[in-house]
Amino acid sequence: MARPSKPARRTARNAAAVDLGTLPQHIGYVLRRTQVAIFQHIIRAMASLDVRPGQFSVLTVIGANPGIKQTAISEALGIRRANLVAMVNEIEGRGWVRRAAIAGDRRAQGLRLTGKGRAALTRLKALAAAHERTVTRLISAREKSSLMRLLRRIDEAST
Amino acid sequence: MARPSKPARRTARNAAAVDLGTLPQHIGYVLRRTQVAIFQHIIRAMASLDVRPGQFSVLTVIGANPGIKQTAISEALGIRRANLVAMVNEIEGRGWVRRAAIAGDRRAQGLRLTGKGRAALTRLKALAAAHERTVTRLISAREKSSLMRLLRRIDEAST
Repeated sequence: MARPSKPARRTARNAAAVDLGTLPQHIGYVLRRTQVAIFQHIIRAMASLDVRPGQFSVLTVIGANPGIKQTAISEALGIRRANLVAMVNEIEGRGWVRRAAIAGDRRAQGLRLTGKGRAALTRLKALAAAHERTVTRLISAREKSSLMRLLRRIDEAST
Repeated sequence: MARPSKPARRTARNAAAVDLGTLPQHIGYVLRRTQVAIFQHIIRAMASLDVRPGQFSVLTVIGANPGIKQTAISEALGIRRANLVAMVNEIEGRGWVRRAAIAGDRRAQGLRLTGKGRAALTRLKALAAAHERTVTRLISAREKSSLMRLLRRIDEAST
């Protein structure tokens, strides 16, 4: 491997010298750093399709719930209404979802994946599975279950 | 407790009916939901001082490293340079930090907490400790250590 460039070495030295105080004992701090790292990893993993983690979640939910309304997606995923509208417009512009009238509800429109959207989701799920194997490679299946269980307890205690 | 309002009940019903597909098996999804919940909790916990989690991290690092440069904070906390500048200006405007020349470096300025900043940080640390006790109340001390260790492994595998 090439010798790190001068700025890279300086970065490593500065980062090592900084005292983080009590931050590394805070679960919120450690969670946030890990969440940013894992998101950067999945963004790289899905870069070939130019899809971000939130878009992947939205496509997955539309795929699993054909005809779903935007309000239901927004509530289920905890995405703000305005942000979701922008995301849906974006994936609709790619021809991956289409809007259709909902029987018995004249105001609302439901969302469905198109054939192109289903094909994209299949590819994205394969990329997500490969990403998952990589980011969990240093822990066992048992440790992953334990991690998920503990995270759900923190989530429950925070709300 | 009062009966939930109509929109609240509708929200609960919609959320329950939505199939999240494979998302709950993805560590990135569970991590993100938990991180958002814990951040919302600490934002409420620190609302009396109008401080957000990122500002608390910056104040903690300045407190632990008097005279630190902005570049070093940005690298140590993984905060983008432009975002950090805005945050530092904001806490400087409150009179919590001051800039001082660094010996032997004519271009750079170091940051230090003022007396007011130290007092604020002391109060924030007490709020953070109370927040920590609340959000970890459903897990044991041993489970918390295990959680931190597993998160670090995920972080390591993601970078």
